[in-house]
Amino acid sequence: MKNLKGACIFAQSGGPTSVINASAAGVFTEALAQKNITAVYGAAHGIKGILTENFYDIGKEDKEELELLKYTPSSALGSVRYKLKDASVDDTDYKRLLEVFKKYDIRYFFYNGGNDSMDTCNKISKYMATSGWDCNVIGVPKTIDNDLYGTDHCPGYGSAAKYVATTVMEVNLDAKVYDTGMVCIIEVMGRNAGWLTASAALANYKGLGADLIYLPEVPFDMDKFVADVKDVCAKNNNKCIAVVSEGIKFADGKYVGEFKASATDLFGHAQLGGVCNVLASVVKEKTGLKVRGIEFSLMQRCAAHLASKTDIEETFRAGREAVKAAVAGETDKMVCYVRKEGKAYEIEYKLLPLELAANTEKQVPKEWITADGTGLTQDFVDYALPLIQGDAKAPLVDGLPRFAKLKKVLATK
Amino acid sequence: MKNLKGACIFAQSGGPTSVINASAAGVFTEALAQKNITAVYGAAHGIKGILTENFYDIGKEDKEELELLKYTPSSALGSVRYKLKDASVDDTDYKRLLEVFKKYDIRYFFYNGGNDSMDTCNKISKYMATSGWDCNVIGVPKTIDNDLYGTDHCPGYGSAAKYVATTVMEVNLDAKVYDTGMVCIIEVMGRNAGWLTASAALANYKGLGADLIYLPEVPFDMDKFVADVKDVCAKNNNKCIAVVSEGIKFADGKYVGEFKASATDLFGHAQLGGVCNVLASVVKEKTGLKVRGIEFSLMQRCAAHLASKTDIEETFRAGREAVKAAVAGETDKMVCYVRKEGKAYEIEYKLLPLELAANTEKQVPKEWITADGTGLTQDFVDYALPLIQGDAKAPLVDGLPRFAKLKKVLATK
Repeated sequence: MKNLKGACIFAQSGGPTSVINASAAGVFTEALAQKNITAVYGAAHGIKGILTENFYDIGKEDKEELELLKYTPSSALGSVRYKLKDASVDDTDYKRLLEVFKKYDIRYFFYNGGNDSMDTCNKISKYMATSGWDCNVIGVPKTIDNDLYGTDHCPGYGSAAKYVATTVMEVNLDAKVYDTGMVCIIEVMGRNAGWLTASAALANYKGLGADLIYLPEVPFDMDKFVADVKDVCAKNNNKCIAVVSEGIKFADGKYVGEFKASATDLFGHAQLGGVCNVLASVVKEKTGLKVRGIEFSLMQRCAAHLASKTDIEETFRAGREAVKAAVAGETDKMVCYVRKEGKAYEIEYKLLPLELAANTEKQVPKEWITADGTGLTQDFVDYALPLIQGDAKAPLVDGLPRFAKLKKVLATK
Repeated sequence: MKNLKGACIFAQSGGPTSVINASAAGVFTEALAQKNITAVYGAAHGIKGILTENFYDIGKEDKEELELLKYTPSSALGSVRYKLKDASVDDTDYKRLLEVFKKYDIRYFFYNGGNDSMDTCNKISKYMATSGWDCNVIGVPKTIDNDLYGTDHCPGYGSAAKYVATTVMEVNLDAKVYDTGMVCIIEVMGRNAGWLTASAALANYKGLGADLIYLPEVPFDMDKFVADVKDVCAKNNNKCIAVVSEGIKFADGKYVGEFKASATDLFGHAQLGGVCNVLASVVKEKTGLKVRGIEFSLMQRCAAHLASKTDIEETFRAGREAVKAAVAGETDKMVCYVRKEGKAYEIEYKLLPLELAANTEKQVPKEWITADGTGLTQDFVDYALPLIQGDAKAPLVDGLPRFAKLKKVLATK
């Protein structure tokens, strides 16, 4: 526990969310108010911006714009997917980071991201500690996938879940409008964890949901899928809405949408997308019904106009708590949410060792998935419903959102 | 001009919009208040529900639910695509309609839809007139395509345009988040008129729009398109957002997405969709950049949570005006919007002969498209911006919209 004085730097990493900048707003607001923090920097494009000394002096930004960050989707500083090598294999990047940290007297480092980013954050934390440069390092979680270990849920998930649930309700009404058959197959993001796909069950809870929900947690069987769709159609005037995760896999571990994959990203994950169209083709062939594949695509993670107020407030607070913890001498931790016991929903902000958060994926518990593998239990609804409460969004100017515009004045030394 | 006493029937037809039920609410509210209207019926699935005597007694519905219709997307009564033959060729359907009208003493007929539906409405109006059955027939326009002749704009367009403009802004921020190249090709509905695709220009007006916009009004040239994308990428760090209409056509009239088409609908239009993926493949091959095709799919016409308040209010009023006109003795007309002269946006509700509205498509004026064919002028922005103003949506219960639930009590006689 070291109480340090010096500059802080904050960076955003990985896929954005519609509320990711609420954490930026939280970090910046709190850091600017802390006496022991002598300068507040925001790195362009995550760790890359630090390596290239490409970061902004947040002290030069207008307070109003920092407030608008809460309602502005997508990483305002720019994001990155950059995998640091193990320092034992190649420490070039680490040496460079240390050089930059020393040059700008960076004593606080906040990294905002998901699993891979917490791994990066963990590696940097460990390197700084062994190199003898005092620097408190705190991770701020972020992911619509909701798959980070050790936190009740992840900043960004509630808003994406609200988008999915609301949009499934609206599509449900639209897809059933004709008296002719129609199968809708909706594809939701989530490589290995089905949390976001599962949020379609919140629409079910409102009576306008999906007939079938398929998560990556349950091995996918094409024949059973076609039989499931046929069953629903037989009972329901040839109408069926199925929501599938982009990450559904066959029993042998192969992604259902895999043959569409054309590349792999730097972390070795397959580039997914388009599984709804794969399934639409199969259903069309097997049933002869009209089938529509719908990808919620980028909208599910950038629809800030439909963000959860609860999510925005928690995400903002997560940023503030990260700064408070670091200033109080904490390091090598990630901020996490702990749900309090009791009927009313309430969370506490705690800290988790970074090595526990890094690279561990939390899946939807098997006991929350119905026995037939195509639905979620009430336990899931009880878990997820508090996370999508309330509306909050950017003010409208000319009927359209007024998002934050940062000056992005480059820091110099 | 005949002032009639008797029942009225209202039906919805064609593709739904996020505010189509606001017209239903307007018709029902006004009809229930009119002394000369003895019963108010709502037909299931458009004209088909009348032919099969499958319609609901709206007098049995709760007032609160009728109010919620304003904020409930997709045709609440069910829709249909059913093409009436010319009565001179086959008058079976017309005779049946007359039979039903007589049985239920239907003296007012309101039909809500787009071009094809106004054609149906026109045919029924003419048949009733020649058959001697006094019945005042009024069409209520509806289409996100905004392509109906004789009205300044169409109910439903403003909300879809607000969805497109807002979502393009959000996707713009998301798609530009990495420091690597990314081309986004967004596909928007619209067979032959580019009004909805053009609304992406409203996002441009806010500085977060599309680099390139392609409408069906301009013949599409694949080589020019690729060159356009390359130009934008060269100037813009290999990032480009292109918004294309599903209905873009080559100079020879063939749809760019045509080879994807697998069927034609009953009106002989090609079933479109997927053109963004066609173009994404081409751009990927020609540039080697990362490319993402995004279809706004059903969401652009059912996202009631993002409806324009102006659109909802006008659409509701269009329903009321239809009833008022019919009760005042008008028939064989469609309600239309006429924009008043002057700086402040204001419209008047007028009536247009049905034969003028039927089957005529209004395209985006050539002079509102920029010379290079990839953008819209300020005149378009001035036209469209007033239509997307204000927010209004269903109340939230448990963080999700509370849509109308009709009892749908079948009418009997």
